[in-house]
Amino acid sequence: MILATPLSDEDCGAQSMPDASPVKWHLAHTSWFFETFILEVYEPDFAPFHPAFRVLFNSYYEGVGDKHPRPQRGMLTRPSLAEIRAYRANVDLRMQALLLSDICDDNCLRLLELGMQHEQQHQELILTDVKHLLSLNPLKPAYLPRALQAMPVQTELEWNTFDAGVVEIGYRNGGFCFDNELPSHRQFVESFAIGSRLISNIEYLMFVEQGGYENPAYWLSAGWDWRSSNQIAHPLYWQRQDDGAWREFTLHGMLPLDPHAAVLHLSYYEADAFARWAGARLPTEAEWEYAVGELGNEGRQFFGTAWQWTSSSYAPYPGYAIPDGAVGEYNGKFMVNQYVLRGSSGATPLGHSRASYRNFFPATACWQYSGIRLARSL
Amino acid sequence: MILATPLSDEDCGAQSMPDASPVKWHLAHTSWFFETFILEVYEPDFAPFHPAFRVLFNSYYEGVGDKHPRPQRGMLTRPSLAEIRAYRANVDLRMQALLLSDICDDNCLRLLELGMQHEQQHQELILTDVKHLLSLNPLKPAYLPRALQAMPVQTELEWNTFDAGVVEIGYRNGGFCFDNELPSHRQFVESFAIGSRLISNIEYLMFVEQGGYENPAYWLSAGWDWRSSNQIAHPLYWQRQDDGAWREFTLHGMLPLDPHAAVLHLSYYEADAFARWAGARLPTEAEWEYAVGELGNEGRQFFGTAWQWTSSSYAPYPGYAIPDGAVGEYNGKFMVNQYVLRGSSGATPLGHSRASYRNFFPATACWQYSGIRLARSL
Amino acid sequence: MILATPLSDEDCGAQSMPDASPVKWHLAHTSWFFETFILEVYEPDFAPFHPAFRVLFNSYYEGVGDKHPRPQRGMLTRPSLAEIRAYRANVDLRMQALLLSDICDDNCLRLLELGMQHEQQHQELILTDVKHLLSLNPLKPAYLPRALQAMPVQTELEWNTFDAGVVEIGYRNGGFCFDNELPSHRQFVESFAIGSRLISNIEYLMFVEQGGYENPAYWLSAGWDWRSSNQIAHPLYWQRQDDGAWREFTLHGMLPLDPHAAVLHLSYYEADAFARWAGARLPTEAEWEYAVGELGNEGRQFFGTAWQWTSSSYAPYPGYAIPDGAVGEYNGKFMVNQYVLRGSSGATPLGHSRASYRNFFPATACWQYSGIRLARSL
Amino acid sequence: MILATPLSDEDCGAQSMPDASPVKWHLAHTSWFFETFILEVYEPDFAPFHPAFRVLFNSYYEGVGDKHPRPQRGMLTRPSLAEIRAYRANVDLRMQALLLSDICDDNCLRLLELGMQHEQQHQELILTDVKHLLSLNPLKPAYLPRALQAMPVQTELEWNTFDAGVVEIGYRNGGFCFDNELPSHRQFVESFAIGSRLISNIEYLMFVEQGGYENPAYWLSAGWDWRSSNQIAHPLYWQRQDDGAWREFTLHGMLPLDPHAAVLHLSYYEADAFARWAGARLPTEAEWEYAVGELGNEGRQFFGTAWQWTSSSYAPYPGYAIPDGAVGEYNGKFMVNQYVLRGSSGATPLGHSRASYRNFFPATACWQYSGIRLARSL
Repeated sequence: MILATPLSDEDCGAQSMPDASPVKWHLAHTSWFFETFILEVYEPDFAPFHPAFRVLFNSYYEGVGDKHPRPQRGMLTRPSLAEIRAYRANVDLRMQALLLSDICDDNCLRLLELGMQHEQQHQELILTDVKHLLSLNPLKPAYLPRALQAMPVQTELEWNTFDAGVVEIGYRNGGFCFDNELPSHRQFVESFAIGSRLISNIEYLMFVEQGGYENPAYWLSAGWDWRSSNQIAHPLYWQRQDDGAWREFTLHGMLPLDPHAAVLHLSYYEADAFARWAGARLPTEAEWEYAVGELGNEGRQFFGTAWQWTSSSYAPYPGYAIPDGAVGEYNGKFMVNQYVLRGSSGATPLGHSRASYRNFFPATACWQYSGIRLARSL
Repeated sequence: MILATPLSDEDCGAQSMPDASPVKWHLAHTSWFFETFILEVYEPDFAPFHPAFRVLFNSYYEGVGDKHPRPQRGMLTRPSLAEIRAYRANVDLRMQALLLSDICDDNCLRLLELGMQHEQQHQELILTDVKHLLSLNPLKPAYLPRALQAMPVQTELEWNTFDAGVVEIGYRNGGFCFDNELPSHRQFVESFAIGSRLISNIEYLMFVEQGGYENPAYWLSAGWDWRSSNQIAHPLYWQRQDDGAWREFTLHGMLPLDPHAAVLHLSYYEADAFARWAGARLPTEAEWEYAVGELGNEGRQFFGTAWQWTSSSYAPYPGYAIPDGAVGEYNGKFMVNQYVLRGSSGATPLGHSRASYRNFFPATACWQYSGIRLARSL
Repeated sequence: MILATPLSDEDCGAQSMPDASPVKWHLAHTSWFFETFILEVYEPDFAPFHPAFRVLFNSYYEGVGDKHPRPQRGMLTRPSLAEIRAYRANVDLRMQALLLSDICDDNCLRLLELGMQHEQQHQELILTDVKHLLSLNPLKPAYLPRALQAMPVQTELEWNTFDAGVVEIGYRNGGFCFDNELPSHRQFVESFAIGSRLISNIEYLMFVEQGGYENPAYWLSAGWDWRSSNQIAHPLYWQRQDDGAWREFTLHGMLPLDPHAAVLHLSYYEADAFARWAGARLPTEAEWEYAVGELGNEGRQFFGTAWQWTSSSYAPYPGYAIPDGAVGEYNGKFMVNQYVLRGSSGATPLGHSRASYRNFFPATACWQYSGIRLARSL
Repeated sequence: MILATPLSDEDCGAQSMPDASPVKWHLAHTSWFFETFILEVYEPDFAPFHPAFRVLFNSYYEGVGDKHPRPQRGMLTRPSLAEIRAYRANVDLRMQALLLSDICDDNCLRLLELGMQHEQQHQELILTDVKHLLSLNPLKPAYLPRALQAMPVQTELEWNTFDAGVVEIGYRNGGFCFDNELPSHRQFVESFAIGSRLISNIEYLMFVEQGGYENPAYWLSAGWDWRSSNQIAHPLYWQRQDDGAWREFTLHGMLPLDPHAAVLHLSYYEADAFARWAGARLPTEAEWEYAVGELGNEGRQFFGTAWQWTSSSYAPYPGYAIPDGAVGEYNGKFMVNQYVLRGSSGATPLGHSRASYRNFFPATACWQYSGIRLARSL
């Protein structure tokens, strides 16, 4: 809720593209998750807050029944933001009552954990979706005033090398993880090297200025078509000014491009083309996860700066089992035509930064905080 | 502004389809018209309220320069509704000052008149656009509480007949009219008959229930394709309930279909198909205008109930001259692939109900209050 | 059939766009017309040549039943061209037998006349469709060798003027005409002037070179959008060479643009924009028909050079009645969102050149031999 | 060339969808490959057969320059099929002369091998593309008369099991292979079982008849959307007759569905949904390749019946290097958003059936001979 503070009611209601959702919808949907998957099952004398909400705020759970069409979420000017706030307060109260009772069994607690993790994922989406909405506005409004920031000191890019071998992949500590991080299993990685930090704006700018976007030799065929039909010549939020200087749209409005900050908001196609131009490639998710395990805190910028595209298609781990019931639609049914991103961004809630976490988006997605870490085969 | 009273800030910001605009945008655009076409020319030391508004609230005037893309109007969550209100107040004050000065010459007064007529046209659009937006909401909210209404008494449909002859068409009184009503000129009409009232819901329901939407013999070829690819089987805001009864979405929410009220929200294709089914046709705009001139107050439902489709394509009158300057883009450039509607609806501001007034929409438009008056050749 | 002589089997089978049809399909469809509307009714012991042809070669007659989807006509590599030739020969023989018998009554003879007129219309379409197909081929092949042609002598454009008055419009001689030319009726025309000849390539080239395609002031709003989204900057078959000279694709291959020949292959939008640029307008169809009646043979280029766009939307004449049966779908159901062209082109069969003949196409169509005759109100 | 024997010139010229090409184009393109990549480099005094062919018959090689737009290949009625035949004969002769000379070095011989393998790939595409074209024809013509076929005896589906371990993947014999089969490398596979044969029509029919296409629980989310928006309810070439019996379009025309033959022409989405319904999954490509290596000739239907979808996204092997020059565009640039199929079909040239061969198509493709082999984790 705190995330909505700098936003007007109007900001919270608008939907900037079918891939994004209104802030208001995120707020309602995360409470809907608790109401539908926990309260509806465990609350004695359950009665829905509003019967229509079951459909209105269902994202994609076919097992729950009908759902409001995704591209039409911006049309829901009613219920109002105030009503959504009341809905959230009501669900919170009912959840508290449930937890104080002895009704909530182990499965209930697992769903509670999942619901909170789910809400945290949506907190990140609120920031990326608001950024996209505001970027479309010719006034280029800021979401937040600009905090003073020390200029990051750019270090030399180094290569950490690893020998070939069988490695253990997937979550294997106690505590919460998503189903797509399981089961822990073995993979063989051939020897490889991975970059010591993310690619910076100035490095990516060299690619832009040396004609990287005009040379099909660097691009996947589908990436070249995407670039051509969308007339893409630079990262999503970059803008070249009349004087030739580059600026970047941020949650603090338009700012001069910071040369040593990590380049952000790239599609898979752009990340892959840059890597080829640089004589390298993207890491696989196994290489990435293994490197983090080995390097530990030595590794720079694994977490907290940008999601890092891997060359791995989003697929189930060997032995992966979809959970029963509608909650089973959480991850498994999206395992096609998407690519895995590893790490986390500055917008990611803290608890989501772990080596086994798998984020995923289509190759064309660039409204997320997505960047580049290079790798090489040895 | 009074029209926005029952609406939340969120309601005012949403755009339900490219053809419609957010209420907020209508409010800003009508003041933009005064600022751009009058204040910018006549105001001493003119300075714009906000430099970006010239582009943001330009509807389609190429002569004014760039314009914000029409389908993106719903993305303008900034400026806020409060800022738009401040903009309107500011323009109003400056217009008052201008009018109290001796600067405003005859041309200025003509533009003032045009600006006020323009604003009235947008008042009607606000109502039709809000209706469309609310109709998309599964909660089917009401814009206004329902006033008590006496059931209209349905009269027999009669035919008023007219002999062939040369008739005078177009505006020829003093006072304001739009350029497209000029010049007054002569047309020859062969003898014809025109219906004494509009077609009612119950009459249109017969067409629906006797398979009117399933028989291509009643339809123009393009209309049949429109019906098929949009899966249309009844008027836009009608809904058949599980028990078979029909309801209609209105600005008062969902209401039972009133059998004797005029049928509304038809496309040209539907109006034309109904007419063929009924063994009649739509009137030409010359026939309609001539009939109103002859029948005067005897004619029922010419004004204030529904815009009435004519079979006349929207075209310039002989000798029509486009006004100089950007204001010249008001009407003339739309004279292709649209059909003329005559009369006025319950949402039309009073001063717009006159015999020579020409409304116009594409053959597919049905979100306006558009209905049917029949005609026949004799 | 003679029209297909310069074409290979492959040429005859290809469909260059949904609006066009393969030559083979034209050949089959015109015989289908005789088989379906005459033989099926009058032939004793009627048996179809091939049961599937009834569906395959139905163009748009809903009353006849199913039809093969229009954009899929190029997929019909079977039946082969040879089989279509056999079909045509078979229908011709059966038609001859029918005519030698005493079975063919007056209605049958009327259908025979319509069938022959229909086939002549398709002869023109074969030429325009083949031209479009060959124009898409990078080899720019010629349909016919180039005949020697005298350079046409360009005359001064003069204006023929006419007084206002009631004029008689529509076909009123004996002999055949299409239903859309009826009934003959009266219209009032205000005084006007009409150009003594068509607009030439050199005149249209001035419009192009003086930025006519870059200035929205000359264009209808929908025309400007059409131009922009299709990136149109000159007539369909023109091509600017590297040396700046213009060439034009013709049925004789690419030829240098003939400056004094009539400009051809314009959309309604282009014709209308040119007229506005030239300080004139397009004629209405009543003006055009009246002028031809008055000027007779004095009028230059009314027939045989180019179809001439009028500003009249294609609509039924007062009292127009759709013929009974499936043949009634011939004209009436297309009377929306199309504009009337008058005259005839060099590809038009001779008997179709008459003052009352109404050709019609959407405002975007430019693969027909369509040109410009200007008019002015006085 | 022999493949074109049962086809008319018209059949050879038509293009049934952007994904498919006309037979004539395949014939020209495969010779173009030899002329462009070999003759142009090695032939003394090289002169192209026709200068325009370099562009016309370039499939997707950006390094070669412009190319004719893929969806427009069916418009190329010129050059004629006879001219293409002459082109092929000419290239064949020049290639023979080159090979008899001492000019052709090792690299030249490698390109020759690649050119022949490339032509064999297109032989298979000719069959699948012709099948698709003929299937669109309502006459459902046969490409070949039906050979007598013994009814295949259906065996019980058994599971071959394998222990976890590091396996060697990729081509490692002498002789030709494609670049995407290299380098040979190690992968770890967890223990798994793989089906002893392909899924049959009768087994797939159970999925259809038990509502497999109506239950979202079996489908990937993107697959469910694909099914819904294309209204897919059975495999591409199946057709349910009025009497409820199923028929299948084949190169021999419509035939009764053979219950014990392998189900064919499935998309990845359908294969994946069937596997989930059956309580199994698709194999990874490493599992598939390892199983073939172990089972050798014991394995049933690995080759010659159907390409078998794997769950592996098409990606480069570790250490994969794109060959230099335009030939480098052969495989690598397509490694995104496609899935690997292993094995071979009845239309595959003999030499292409090997354990390491990687075919690949988007998840929506179903006009290839693609079927299902199941797997399970243990």
